Amino acid sequence: MEIKFKPIGVVHSPLKKKEDIQSSRSTDPQGFDSVQGELEIFKEFEEGLKDIDGFSHLILLFAFHKSEECRLFAHPPYDNKRRGVFATRSPNRPNPIGMTVLKLIQIERNILRVSGIDMFEGTPVLDIKPYTPRDQKSPIKLGWLEDKIKQAPKSQ
Amino acid sequence: MEIKFKPIGVVHSPLKKKEDIQSSRSTDPQGFDSVQGELEIFKEFEEGLKDIDGFSHLILLFAFHKSEECRLFAHPPYDNKRRGVFATRSPNRPNPIGMTVLKLIQIERNILRVSGIDMFEGTPVLDIKPYTPRDQKSPIKLGWLEDKIKQAPKSQ
Repeated sequence: MEIKFKPIGVVHSPLKKKEDIQSSRSTDPQGFDSVQGELEIFKEFEEGLKDIDGFSHLILLFAFHKSEECRLFAHPPYDNKRRGVFATRSPNRPNPIGMTVLKLIQIERNILRVSGIDMFEGTPVLDIKPYTPRDQKSPIKLGWLEDKIKQAPKSQ
Repeated sequence: MEIKFKPIGVVHSPLKKKEDIQSSRSTDPQGFDSVQGELEIFKEFEEGLKDIDGFSHLILLFAFHKSEECRLFAHPPYDNKRRGVFATRSPNRPNPIGMTVLKLIQIERNILRVSGIDMFEGTPVLDIKPYTPRDQKSPIKLGWLEDKIKQAPKSQ
């Protein structure tokens, strides 16, 4: 059984290569919050953006198009252990779909200006959804990440 | 350009038909928080679940396999207006991928017991990710949903 999807748009990002991601991660422990970019939604889907302007945050689903291979284990940054891939956000996973919550800054026709960008220029957009109270969970437990996040300066 | 994914598992849910969803929605304004079910991850991916047990919440990406058609507008429940589909969580969208944050109750081998289930029995699982502080956004604005959520009893 195969499930097929088609991109509905493309991400325009200041992150062009692996080193840009690494550099953003190390200088911005808040997790790319300040990284701005644009979601360009293809014209044929533009009507579906109606009413989206009232939401402050959007869930972006995208394809990890630079994902190298499917792996069941990952070596996350700042961690010296091999972790199960489903306990990480690694791009190299059985179905390379990414999910990031973005802040909506402005929308003009089919272009959404957003912040929180942590994906590469040219990333295919699969879906956009409004972020709602059902997506806000607290308190949360972070497993192996707990120590790593506490160690990171300024991180919450 | 087409992007292909394969299910890595299947959802076992008490919600078998449309009426079950409607009934859960009307009796549980907290949004299915109390609805329990299981994620059965196929054996070949079981190793990828290592380290997941320490996380309290998981992001589930799944295929809306009962989605009827691709629409650019949706008529959400409790709303009498036509909304742009990307401003809703409607299953009938250009790429019918669902995203729900679940609470992890227990894990035994390849079976994850979870609560927060709002999808049908037999739903194909595409991906599981840990829910982290980067997914917690607050305060948020809810656009057209703002009034609806305030009106719902006990909802936050």
